[in-house]
Amino acid sequence: MWARDESIVTHFNKYHRNPMYLRDHQFPPNITAVGPDLPSKELIDTMDVLLFAIPTQFLRENLTSLHPRLDRHKMPLMIFVNKGIEVGTHALTLEIIADTCGPEVARAATFISGPSFAKEIVERQPTSVSVASFNESEANKATILFHQPHFRCYTGVDPIGIELSGALKNVYAIAAGMSDGLGFENNTRAMIITRGLAEMTCIGTAYGASPLTFLGLAGVGDLFLTCSSSNSRNYTVGHRLGRGESLDTIMKTLGSVAEGVSTTKGVKTIIDELGVNAPIANSIYDVLYNGKETRTAVRELMELPPSKELELPPTAGGPARKLLRKLGLDIS
Amino acid sequence: MWARDESIVTHFNKYHRNPMYLRDHQFPPNITAVGPDLPSKELIDTMDVLLFAIPTQFLRENLTSLHPRLDRHKMPLMIFVNKGIEVGTHALTLEIIADTCGPEVARAATFISGPSFAKEIVERQPTSVSVASFNESEANKATILFHQPHFRCYTGVDPIGIELSGALKNVYAIAAGMSDGLGFENNTRAMIITRGLAEMTCIGTAYGASPLTFLGLAGVGDLFLTCSSSNSRNYTVGHRLGRGESLDTIMKTLGSVAEGVSTTKGVKTIIDELGVNAPIANSIYDVLYNGKETRTAVRELMELPPSKELELPPTAGGPARKLLRKLGLDIS
Repeated sequence: MWARDESIVTHFNKYHRNPMYLRDHQFPPNITAVGPDLPSKELIDTMDVLLFAIPTQFLRENLTSLHPRLDRHKMPLMIFVNKGIEVGTHALTLEIIADTCGPEVARAATFISGPSFAKEIVERQPTSVSVASFNESEANKATILFHQPHFRCYTGVDPIGIELSGALKNVYAIAAGMSDGLGFENNTRAMIITRGLAEMTCIGTAYGASPLTFLGLAGVGDLFLTCSSSNSRNYTVGHRLGRGESLDTIMKTLGSVAEGVSTTKGVKTIIDELGVNAPIANSIYDVLYNGKETRTAVRELMELPPSKELELPPTAGGPARKLLRKLGLDIS
Repeated sequence: MWARDESIVTHFNKYHRNPMYLRDHQFPPNITAVGPDLPSKELIDTMDVLLFAIPTQFLRENLTSLHPRLDRHKMPLMIFVNKGIEVGTHALTLEIIADTCGPEVARAATFISGPSFAKEIVERQPTSVSVASFNESEANKATILFHQPHFRCYTGVDPIGIELSGALKNVYAIAAGMSDGLGFENNTRAMIITRGLAEMTCIGTAYGASPLTFLGLAGVGDLFLTCSSSNSRNYTVGHRLGRGESLDTIMKTLGSVAEGVSTTKGVKTIIDELGVNAPIANSIYDVLYNGKETRTAVRELMELPPSKELELPPTAGGPARKLLRKLGLDIS
């Protein structure tokens, strides 16, 4: 296990505990921490699997350093569990991998996502996740590796949809928190989750993902978890906005990053480029960046004219096609 | 407003309150209660809209009495808000309407369903529902009637999917309650809701409904509400089973009917006839009717081999085709 902080490496190897997170959890003694330098080519050569739990914003620089150390004739299974889109480029992780390690590595990359608080996983509470890759046999390898009686893996072949779900859900977690903060109850939260899911599905479809991916563990499963737990930082930002605090105050006192706040900006650009109707995401953007009052946002959303329930946009899929071309997977 | 209990009719007209439910809510004085006899042909002739909030198990006898009082040349908009399938026949409401009032009335029937606790609606909390009919213009009429700033209506054309959602969700509410009763937390509940949704979607697709209906307010929206609220009777049955009580004791002391318990029996028949893979529904059936221990059920579910995330069965749609034929809508 690589860590970029030397004191964590030392602490972990001595006590088999992480001094920062899940501090009560005793890790098995056969896990060794290395760092703070990236592992050498020789060490990486001995690895069958690399699992990346690096925040999306730092992935590009790390993969750039890592790439020369990978033996392309003996590639490990590469699994990614980070979420979100890269600030500035709006790139998905697939694109970051293709840019830094080449299309072949991106095509084999495998993604794990789903409703899975780490605290509950280490307690062996029954948990399920989605495992997806363009390369089905790599996804199956990851599934065989992780699947066990308290942790079920479901395989799929739509990593783009899995990645978009992971980013988009944080915007709707802010919305759900805002509703609770304003004092609304169950009907309203169920509405936000469901209409949020409809927006996610429309955005995903227009992007070029499969609408059914949003029905899965990485879609509605993770959305539901994130929107109904005060453990979620994005939910907390929304909740405090709903109670009348300013974004500035919240960000200064939150003590950790709420990914949804920056993701909302990237999502707004994607929505506008695709021309998708996503009123909740637009409202959250206006509350975060245009000073719109939360009560005004709710009133305006509720006063929209009636509409059909789920009108999927034509699967133009421009962004996905562009990405597939980069990955050498364009079939048109 | 028709009620079948004379004392309620009298009380309501005197105080404009319902003595049984939402007792604190003051209804507008221009609503008049009639009953206990079914309204006369003359009174019904003056109605533009009839809204049926009659439990599914009593709908057939009521529609049989009502049908001769309907003027087929001047039909009111008929809206149904009941849920579930008829015990014994496994008929959906659409079929009950066709059997009692003829296919023409069933084709125009409109269904309203979604995450909407009555208590929160009368408090004017923001709420959204699905409105569906084979006849789009009837659905639009219902939407125009009910749509207002605190109550949004989304129209659709898949009443079969809306009805199936309303019945199936109660089975998974029992499962979610059971998980909470056993002491499991967020990951497990999110897994049950998501995998329950996948099962509902597979059953619905095999039946002949549209998979996307299950992404809507009457599908995932109502499933989410029912599975995460101790106000739901079905959730409560599951919760008490999870804590070790017997079904017998629960049913004797619950004080009201939990529809999901009888629905599970009908759903089991439908699943077996369609040959759909629905392990959670099968487990709930075994816990309710074959004395399976709840912990054993969870262990067996978690020990299933890994699988693909969402493999929709071929839309054979046998039951839906049979129903559409009865309604004169078979297009093949």
